[in-house]
Amino acid sequence: MIVLKLGGSVITEKSAPETVDGAALARAADAVAGHDGELVLVHGGGSFGHPHAERHGVSTTDGTRDARAVTDVHGAMGELNAAVVGALADRGVPAVPVHPLSAASRDADGALSLPVEAPRRMLGEGFVPVLHGDVVVHEGRGATVVSGDELVVALARGLDADRVGLCSDVPGVLDGTGNVVARIGAFGEVETVLGGSDETDVTGGMAAKVRALLDLDVPANVFDLDGLGPFLAGEDPGTRVG
Amino acid sequence: MIVLKLGGSVITEKSAPETVDGAALARAADAVAGHDGELVLVHGGGSFGHPHAERHGVSTTDGTRDARAVTDVHGAMGELNAAVVGALADRGVPAVPVHPLSAASRDADGALSLPVEAPRRMLGEGFVPVLHGDVVVHEGRGATVVSGDELVVALARGLDADRVGLCSDVPGVLDGTGNVVARIGAFGEVETVLGGSDETDVTGGMAAKVRALLDLDVPANVFDLDGLGPFLAGEDPGTRVG
Repeated sequence: MIVLKLGGSVITEKSAPETVDGAALARAADAVAGHDGELVLVHGGGSFGHPHAERHGVSTTDGTRDARAVTDVHGAMGELNAAVVGALADRGVPAVPVHPLSAASRDADGALSLPVEAPRRMLGEGFVPVLHGDVVVHEGRGATVVSGDELVVALARGLDADRVGLCSDVPGVLDGTGNVVARIGAFGEVETVLGGSDETDVTGGMAAKVRALLDLDVPANVFDLDGLGPFLAGEDPGTRVG
Repeated sequence: MIVLKLGGSVITEKSAPETVDGAALARAADAVAGHDGELVLVHGGGSFGHPHAERHGVSTTDGTRDARAVTDVHGAMGELNAAVVGALADRGVPAVPVHPLSAASRDADGALSLPVEAPRRMLGEGFVPVLHGDVVVHEGRGATVVSGDELVVALARGLDADRVGLCSDVPGVLDGTGNVVARIGAFGEVETVLGGSDETDVTGGMAAKVRALLDLDVPANVFDLDGLGPFLAGEDPGTRVG
């Protein structure tokens, strides 16, 4: 079973508010449609979720008790999710939406809890669950953002994934000269390149991704759209983490 | 804590496809906005969910593996849910959507599992979760309908509700002469009136409601819009069940 994330920056025009990158989404959906096997999809927010989250001052740690802020972010992400599910359905993929706000939550320490019984049963019935970065209720803080990357980690653990793929807008983790690092076995190998603070959106940059992927027991690959087909075909594109 | 269901036949024009009964929804939302205390809302499908479910041949027991059927029913219910959440938000109620497809599922025997950690934490943070009748994955059958009534029962149990209210399009459970039965302590008291097979929609009629409410440990009331304000104020309108 594969957990695959489509980065928000891949499938949306990140500079244009709430705009799908139709050509990129079509390429991604084509690749997914060509895959035969159990698959859980997650997508990020790109130009849908992030502007709303920033406007309302909501991040993975800064919460809101304004229900309008919650429904703004959630509603925008729901629209992007519908576009992704629709693109997959158009290609015969039995995609069904799964909205994290409805199921996931954080405790007072920020630890994410994601019930996976429904996604597991969806897989068993032949469906492809499609989750997305979202807002979730957070004990003591109202509601905070949950990133697609966090969901990937929770799903990979909870559903005992065999492989994890992150389809990004870069061909892998890049070293100081812009080349793809083929393999990362420990964070120290790339710490000087990735740093700890190059976070450009509310849900963290590449450093956070790599740290999270290294915590998994299964191998993960970071690649771009060119690598998606090969990854689903069992190849090892981009950067292998772990 | 109160679990309140707004019947689909109350808040939609049941004879007109996907049409909200704006005046009825406004009355219901006004009553909810006037209530001070923990509240979980559930609404039915009315003219949104039922036509799609019937067209695809999906019921609480007849499933589908057609993902388009799933997203048709789910999407229509999501639209109605957005209307309900919006009407509440307009009145200052911190309503947030909770979509059962994302969290709930049925086992091979049809038993419903509904994780309630997220709704519980929503209540704790001051939000009002708003659930709806939906489709959910069903082991061995693809996906089947989950009724608002089933969700009410699962939420009342899982969240340890103090009271349950069903706001219906009739002022209570009616006897053979059209009068409201004030109290039902056991199904046998109304079996001759309700019968067991007067089911007019995919999610069961009044007989199924009464049976389910009798199984709860907490008292439930069945009333119409006129009874909603009094019910939320702690009165005992319509028919008391259990």
